[in-house]
Amino acid sequence: MASGNEIILLEHGSGGQASEELLEKLFFPLLKDVRPLDSALLPPSNGRLAFTTDTFVVSPIFFPGGDIGSLAVHGTVNDLAMVGARPLFLSVAFILEEGLPIKTLKQVVSSLARAAEKAGVKVVCGDTKVVPRGKADQIFINTTGLGVVPEGTEITPHRICPGDRILVSGPIAEHGLAVLLAREGLGLEGLKSDSQPLHQAVAALLEALGPELHALRDPTRGGLGSVLNELARSCGATFLLQEKDLPLRPEVEAGCEILGLDPLYLACEGCFLAFVSSGAAEKALAVLHKQPETREAKIIGEVRKGPAQVVLQTKVGGHRLIKSLHGEPLPRIC
Amino acid sequence: MASGNEIILLEHGSGGQASEELLEKLFFPLLKDVRPLDSALLPPSNGRLAFTTDTFVVSPIFFPGGDIGSLAVHGTVNDLAMVGARPLFLSVAFILEEGLPIKTLKQVVSSLARAAEKAGVKVVCGDTKVVPRGKADQIFINTTGLGVVPEGTEITPHRICPGDRILVSGPIAEHGLAVLLAREGLGLEGLKSDSQPLHQAVAALLEALGPELHALRDPTRGGLGSVLNELARSCGATFLLQEKDLPLRPEVEAGCEILGLDPLYLACEGCFLAFVSSGAAEKALAVLHKQPETREAKIIGEVRKGPAQVVLQTKVGGHRLIKSLHGEPLPRIC
Repeated sequence: MASGNEIILLEHGSGGQASEELLEKLFFPLLKDVRPLDSALLPPSNGRLAFTTDTFVVSPIFFPGGDIGSLAVHGTVNDLAMVGARPLFLSVAFILEEGLPIKTLKQVVSSLARAAEKAGVKVVCGDTKVVPRGKADQIFINTTGLGVVPEGTEITPHRICPGDRILVSGPIAEHGLAVLLAREGLGLEGLKSDSQPLHQAVAALLEALGPELHALRDPTRGGLGSVLNELARSCGATFLLQEKDLPLRPEVEAGCEILGLDPLYLACEGCFLAFVSSGAAEKALAVLHKQPETREAKIIGEVRKGPAQVVLQTKVGGHRLIKSLHGEPLPRIC
Repeated sequence: MASGNEIILLEHGSGGQASEELLEKLFFPLLKDVRPLDSALLPPSNGRLAFTTDTFVVSPIFFPGGDIGSLAVHGTVNDLAMVGARPLFLSVAFILEEGLPIKTLKQVVSSLARAAEKAGVKVVCGDTKVVPRGKADQIFINTTGLGVVPEGTEITPHRICPGDRILVSGPIAEHGLAVLLAREGLGLEGLKSDSQPLHQAVAALLEALGPELHALRDPTRGGLGSVLNELARSCGATFLLQEKDLPLRPEVEAGCEILGLDPLYLACEGCFLAFVSSGAAEKALAVLHKQPETREAKIIGEVRKGPAQVVLQTKVGGHRLIKSLHGEPLPRIC
């Protein structure tokens, strides 16, 4: 594993000498908290545990603003943050396609390790499988996360109620568009994935708002449109959004127009939706504007009594019903 | 999803309506403890946590004695048991290939759910991704497990010391051989995978032996030969095995002979190796013989001072050095 031309072979997944070599030379030096044991041993939890899993099959595996390694950390860290948890530990499991350059694997694992360190989470256990050429697509990564939820925190869609304000923590649709363009070999000046960890911004919000923070959700697959529909159904209310307030970078707006895509259905990996009681909305905004990850947060709408639906008040004053993404597959963006 | 001819489409992974329908109609009814939230919330742990991850890419996905669903439960439950933990919770993450019959998926998820129920673990969170035809092989499953380690338990290879007896809890090489034969469309009367959960037998052993139980390991990928080498290196001692005492079913012996395979390198998914102080070996054996999963346990060798190596005393009295599996890829058996 020195010359730079080596590739992953089936025997790297056999459990024998080649597997051990890959662990010793590549994985263990980069993922320093992983031990060659069946299970990692962790201290008793000081509070309720949050537990979440996500597999990443993004294509291409490198894209502007990130790669499958950093995304695998941010995605799972953010899923923990969305229930108010402080992310602590990650497991990471790789499926490698025979023939993958070891250099590529090293780049991805390095990026994953850096992202974990930056987010303050420890990768404590892992797994690697190898499948023959044509039975996977380069590399798939599962990360499963563990966090602790502070005493008294109850962040759940069931707490959303009429009157709540709906905030989004930053510009939308960047991740989905960046990956779709990268897949076609296209780029757009200034456009990159928004992939980033959000738990620190969430912690600040939670500390400032306490129980006035009702629910959180990161609009990943399916985008804002699908995720809001899911939430509207789970709380049985109408969400009224203001089109003029949706934060959308000009390059994203342009890209969507060229490709005929609706930004409401493109995945975000670095922003979240927050539902807060109306009296706390301005305070929430002020807190988010102080955090580096959420400087561009906006109040985009409110919750109203009514049927479970999502309605967009357009810039010209009309109303458009926003449904869940349907029959328009934009897969492998995460 | 009623007629029985439906297949997985890319839009089942898009995060929109089709994804939700798959969750509502297939996953949630079978995996009743999974909630549509970003993270599962679990009670605080009463003791140290064990945390482990494993991805299953076994081919074929159905084989005598099990399938990828039951295997995904047993594999992870057993990894928890190998540090003395009581398995409690699982996450489960699927990668589905476009075109997979929904009937097949349902069979696998049902089997996974049954295995989890039987093992007494709850599947509390999940994820599903869909990749285009030819970018995966039917179905891959990651399970990540959480368990609690009883106070005072310390089961680790570092506690293995000269004088220890080496036990194996049942006949070896069955899983690897059963899967390899199934892949070739062959069968062998009476041969099936040994895939089963082992945590109850481990709990009984731990209760009876206490600190005299030093280390545990399930010889999965790489088989007994590779796993024993890894352990010998981590404790810096010689393992002397008696060939005559290795439990091997006649059909496994026959199958290995026909195919030219060494049972020492074939995976087990339903037995474990235990290292116990010499004075406790007979007691350990008696305990294991009372457990349904480990009725055929045997003492197969002992730990001696000497270089880190594994030596087999053959039936005719010679000595054979057992090395780690090398350059003989038998992949995708788990």
